[in-house]
This record gives sequence, structure tokens and C-alpha cells, in this order.
Amino acid sequence: MHRTQLAGYRAEHFLYEADVGVATITLNRPERKNPLTFDSYAELRDLFRALAYADDVKAVVLTGAGGNFCSGGDVHEIIGPLTQLDMPGLLAFTRMTGDLVKAMLGCPQPIVAAVDGVCAGAGAILAMASDVRLASTRARTAFLFTKVGLAGCDMGACAILPRLIGQGRAAELLYTGRAMSAEEGERWGFYNRLCAPDQVRGEAQRLARGLAEGPTFAHGMTKKMLQQEWTMGIAEALEAEAQAQAICMATGDFRRAYDAFVAKTTPRFEGD
Amino acid sequence: MHRTQLAGYRAEHFLYEADVGVATITLNRPERKNPLTFDSYAELRDLFRALAYADDVKAVVLTGAGGNFCSGGDVHEIIGPLTQLDMPGLLAFTRMTGDLVKAMLGCPQPIVAAVDGVCAGAGAILAMASDVRLASTRARTAFLFTKVGLAGCDMGACAILPRLIGQGRAAELLYTGRAMSAEEGERWGFYNRLCAPDQVRGEAQRLARGLAEGPTFAHGMTKKMLQQEWTMGIAEALEAEAQAQAICMATGDFRRAYDAFVAKTTPRFEGD
Amino acid sequence: MHRTQLAGYRAEHFLYEADVGVATITLNRPERKNPLTFDSYAELRDLFRALAYADDVKAVVLTGAGGNFCSGGDVHEIIGPLTQLDMPGLLAFTRMTGDLVKAMLGCPQPIVAAVDGVCAGAGAILAMASDVRLASTRARTAFLFTKVGLAGCDMGACAILPRLIGQGRAAELLYTGRAMSAEEGERWGFYNRLCAPDQVRGEAQRLARGLAEGPTFAHGMTKKMLQQEWTMGIAEALEAEAQAQAICMATGDFRRAYDAFVAKTTPRFEGD
Repeated sequence: MHRTQLAGYRAEHFLYEADVGVATITLNRPERKNPLTFDSYAELRDLFRALAYADDVKAVVLTGAGGNFCSGGDVHEIIGPLTQLDMPGLLAFTRMTGDLVKAMLGCPQPIVAAVDGVCAGAGAILAMASDVRLASTRARTAFLFTKVGLAGCDMGACAILPRLIGQGRAAELLYTGRAMSAEEGERWGFYNRLCAPDQVRGEAQRLARGLAEGPTFAHGMTKKMLQQEWTMGIAEALEAEAQAQAICMATGDFRRAYDAFVAKTTPRFEGD
Repeated sequence: MHRTQLAGYRAEHFLYEADVGVATITLNRPERKNPLTFDSYAELRDLFRALAYADDVKAVVLTGAGGNFCSGGDVHEIIGPLTQLDMPGLLAFTRMTGDLVKAMLGCPQPIVAAVDGVCAGAGAILAMASDVRLASTRARTAFLFTKVGLAGCDMGACAILPRLIGQGRAAELLYTGRAMSAEEGERWGFYNRLCAPDQVRGEAQRLARGLAEGPTFAHGMTKKMLQQEWTMGIAEALEAEAQAQAICMATGDFRRAYDAFVAKTTPRFEGD
Repeated sequence: MHRTQLAGYRAEHFLYEADVGVATITLNRPERKNPLTFDSYAELRDLFRALAYADDVKAVVLTGAGGNFCSGGDVHEIIGPLTQLDMPGLLAFTRMTGDLVKAMLGCPQPIVAAVDGVCAGAGAILAMASDVRLASTRARTAFLFTKVGLAGCDMGACAILPRLIGQGRAAELLYTGRAMSAEEGERWGFYNRLCAPDQVRGEAQRLARGLAEGPTFAHGMTKKMLQQEWTMGIAEALEAEAQAQAICMATGDFRRAYDAFVAKTTPRFEGD
């Protein structure tokens, strides 16, 4: 099968670094708290689409520069132009932002968000659409679409946020646009863990490295099935998992784990 | 389009007050802890149906008089007669109570429940079917259908409660009928916030007023999509949100928010 | 209708005791922390299937001997042989383990898991597939499939675990295989309550006895509908509950509860 390498990838609208199987994407306009623009949306979408076929990246860290994660769609560069668009133009934009979420969900690599400071609007969506989320104790996460006159149904928030923190908490955040504190985020299950501000990026990379050293084919199956079973009946989910896990039992990594157990050593997974 | 006004509405079986876009519904038989009767069920259903077309109400507060929210279906006025009904009669009743929930979900106004004291049976359902829930520290919430020999599947509880507090906690409450304390309710995500008993009604009205001053067309879309995406696959949800949000981007409120941002003022939303 | 009795049931690969309507299943290879084998999987599946037709068992307690719940599939007796199987053989195995979960979900009796110590792999699944879960303060629960090179989608974990603890926490546990502490399990909604290690079995039996004394036909309907509505739209769920509850209103237990209320006594439910 055709597999590609991202080793030579040079990002234009954010920072991209790769090391020992972990790609780190850093939103990098710190003077504006790392807003998204039409260009960065498109490049992120294309990068996550490319990751679906890249075999040299096993896990992804998504973070922001300068003490903030992401302030969302830039008011001048995005919201202003949107007020000038006709309906086909508006739909083209909302579909494009939805496509970024689809691309994040579509790549097999687990995405670990490392969130410090402001995490707002489409930025909160990027955290939400990641697979695991670490935050600093000063992270402030707001789905603030209502503040700009819009609905909470942006980039999957009405579908995904309730599954993370419950329907009632999601409703309040989406109706009011208020910030969820870091402590609330951990308590409600949005953030998996809180870290000191100067450690959240390092902890996310450590976690991603651990995942990259694991059975990455199986991780990709876990990611796929967590989405695939979203709306399955329970009986259908059990059959779907029976098939998916049988596939994983035919991998070398399953045998490697067993051989290591018998030899009383630690398995070295190879992702196939 | 035909829009109606509820300004002149006079309730028969509960209190109804409206002020600055916020309608407050107060269940008001405090000597019996505000039970529901066939009449109050029907009037609540009809009122929430009317709210779907009323353009002078932007948010709803649902509460009870005299230190309790609602004790549920009255034993003498509802349960007694039910024991005399044949199957078509029973189904007519359970469909009617379900229609109240459908009407609460069907109106575009966010409903804020303000819960003090007893919140039991169908009363707990009314809280559950609201969009945001505030409780006093002495609220006691019980899905006590099992105590009268019935199943937990009443008025949507087996579908909605697990999405609010998780499947395991919902199962325990529905199997045992035990009361959930206010503290548990907040910790589990059923209640968005706890207040002192003498403040829960005022806090709910303050919250509702804030929502009524927001982009109410967009709030109605948020409410609709939180239900619409309940069982959608993720990809379908992303497309549904792209369409719904594009509609909201064509509203005046979106432009008002942008203009206010540019003018460094606070937007005044008009709900269109 | 044909109903069977399990009174004379003798288990081969675990302990089985029944008392006052409560069946207690104890996984019982304490020197190995109660692993599952091909034989015990099959016997558990057959027992839960038989429970669907047994009218002398009203609730089930599932527990382990010697201070642990269950260590999952035995490495030597299950994982070793699996590495030798072809794809049809692998799928036959994963379908068989899924059938155990289906049988646990398919019997009308509520299953109360009493978890102490190690609760790992397929053992964690058995706890997850129960209806209510009590744990001792030293319970350690790990979905450790990733540790043996497999995916988290095993026996329904990608469908059920997110509904219990939220999608984000489930993802972390399934990707990393790390143990969830007892305190986390309670805080996240996996465990309904924590007990002292020497009390968890007794507390589970007390809870099960209370359920067995309740309206057991209605409990079976609650269990059925919690699954049935898993992926229903809200409107369809409301109609489904209207029908299901109307059925329960035609039972003797509903009348017994009303008669007891009128007579100011405690109802004695009979499960019909």
C-alpha cells in the first residue's frame, strides 16, 4: 500500500516538529494568542489528512506558543470577511472548518492536546476534537460562539462535547459561552489531567511518546472504533468489536507481546 | 410567518409570570409539594407547545412554590385512577406525559429549572427535561418510579438521564429510586450549580435573563441541534452543524456582534 | 410461558450460590487472581443465557475470591493459544467473549459487580457490563488490552465505557491501559460507591437483595430500555417509554404499590 513520509514537512502557518514518531504542532502567533486564519485552518486540515497516510508519525501533540493554546477564529481575518459572504460562501466556510475536525478524527494517530491559557472558540474545538487532553492549571476553555451571535453547533460541539462532559454541562457552556476553568475541565472529564503551566507541553509529549512506542496499529483501531460505535446499538457494537479485535489478534504486535511475556521481557511494538 | 404573543396568558393550574422576555412557571400547590395532576400536565404541555410560536418569550424558568420543586404525579389524583384504566387508557396517559417532555424539548427557548426541596418522580423528569438546572443545597431528586412498582423508563428517563450523569449512575438511580443529593447532583453533572435555598429562583431568573438578552435565534438552534445530533454519526453531525451554523451566520445578530466588536461596544442582540 | 428454575444449578468453573432470589457468582481461582479461561467464559455465557428464563433468580452479584475480582484472560490458557489461531478461529473467540457480554445484558436480572483488588482486561469488561458496580477502596481497574498489543475495542469497551465515564476518560484508559484507581472510578461514575474491602461483597448482596424484593418485572424493563434506547432519537425514546411503562402499569406490582400506599403499609412486590 502506498505510505508516505512526513519527515520533510515544512509548515507555513504554524510550527511543525517531529521526533521519535511524535509530531508536535504549535500554533504560533503568540502576540494574538494564536488565532486561526483561513490559511492555518486549511493547512491544518491538509496536514491531518496527510497524517492518515504517513507511517513515520505515530502520535501527535497539538499545542500553542507563548502561554496560550488558541484564541479561535481571528475576528479581523475571519469574522469580518464572513459577514460579507453569501450563503454558499458561508456554508463553504463551515464545511471547511468541519473538515478540519473530520481530518483530526480521520488520522489514526492519537492526538494529545496540551492546553495552556486561552482555549477559546475554534481553539476549544481543536482541544475537543483531540483524543486526550492535558491542561495547565491556568487554562480557560470557552465555547464562545454565542458571544458573536452564533449557535453552539460549531465544528461538532453539540455532538462531541456532551459525550465528554455530559449533556447538561455542555448545554450550559454552549448557551452561555462562559469559560470552563481548568479545575472544572478536569472534574468534568474534558481534561484528562492538569499540569503546571511549564510542564503541560512536556507531559503531553511524554504521553505521546508512550503511545508512539505502543501497538500503533491497534491504537489506530481504538481511535476508529471509538468513532465507529458512536451511534451503534450495543449488539452491533459487540459484533463490530469482535471483528476489529480479531484483526488486531492477527498482528505481529500481539505475538510480540505474548513472546515478551513468556520471555519475561518488555515487548517492543512495531505497529504491524 | 405567523408568530403569537403570550403576553396575555393566564395559567389555571400553576403560576405564570413574564418579565423582560423571561417566563416563569411556578408549580403552586405548596401544601402537597406541588404535585402534577391530569390538568396541570395538560396545561403545561399546551403552554410549552404555544411557546414554540411565541416571540415575546425568550427564556423560561421552571420552579415550584414553598420550598419544593415538584412531588410528581399525585397518588390520589393520578396513580389511583391509573389503576382503573385499560391498556389504551394507560398508553394514552404515558403518551400524554411524554408529550409534555416533547413540548419542553420542542420550544426554542432555553428552560432553566430552579429546584429546591423535593424533586421527585415526574417532577425529577421536568428538571431533567430542562436545558440548564440550578438547585438549592437541600434539593433531593428521586426518580422513584420503582417505588410504585414501575420501571425507570418514564418520560424519557432511560434516554436522557444517562446522557446527563452517565449510564452507571442513571442505572442505580432508576433501579433503586433513591434520592440523589444536591451535592451528588452537582458532582455528577445533573445540576449546573448549587445555590442557597433563598437564592435559587433569583439565580435562575438572572441566568434566564442573560440568555434572553443573547442571540436567541442562535440559542434556539443550539437547543435544536443538541437534540438533533443525539444519535447522528460524527460525520453527519459535522455536516448538520455546518448547515445550522451557516444559517446563524446569515442572521443580523452575527453582524451586530461583529459591528460591536469593531466599535468596541457591547452587542445588543435582537434574536433575528 | 416456559420458565425454568436454577435452584439446582452446580457451576463447574466458578462458585454459584443462590439465596432469597439473589444468585452470587464468584470467580474462584484466587491463586491466579481469578483469570478467565475458555471454559469459564463459556460457562458464564451459558449461565447468563439460562438466567433469562429462570424465575427463581431476581438479581445477580458478580464477584471474585481472595481479594481480587478478575485478572482477565489467562495469558497461558488464552493468549498463548490465540497466537496459534487462524482468522476464523480468532473471530470465533472474539464473538464468544462478546456473547458473554450480550448474555449479561440479555438477562432481565440486574447484575451488581462487587470489585476488590485486581479488575483487569476481560475482568474489567465483566464489571463494565454489569448494571451497578460497587468497589473496594483498593480496587484497581485496567482495560489493559493495549499492553498485549491489542486495541481497546474488546467486548464492547469502545461503546459502553464512554457512556459510563465519558469519551475522553475512556479514550485515555483504552489507549494507555493504565489502571483507574478506586477513587477515580467513583468520581468518574464507573463505580457507584466505594466500600471497605471486607464489606464490598456484603454491600453488593444487600443491594441485590433490595432489588430482588422490588418490582422485578419492572426492573427487567428498566434494564431492557436502558439498552433499547441506546441509539434512539429522543422522540422515538419517548414513544418507546410510553409503551414500556404502559405495560408496567398493567402489572400487579403497580396495583400492589398503590394499595399499600392507601393502606399506609409497605408494598410486597411479586414481580408480576
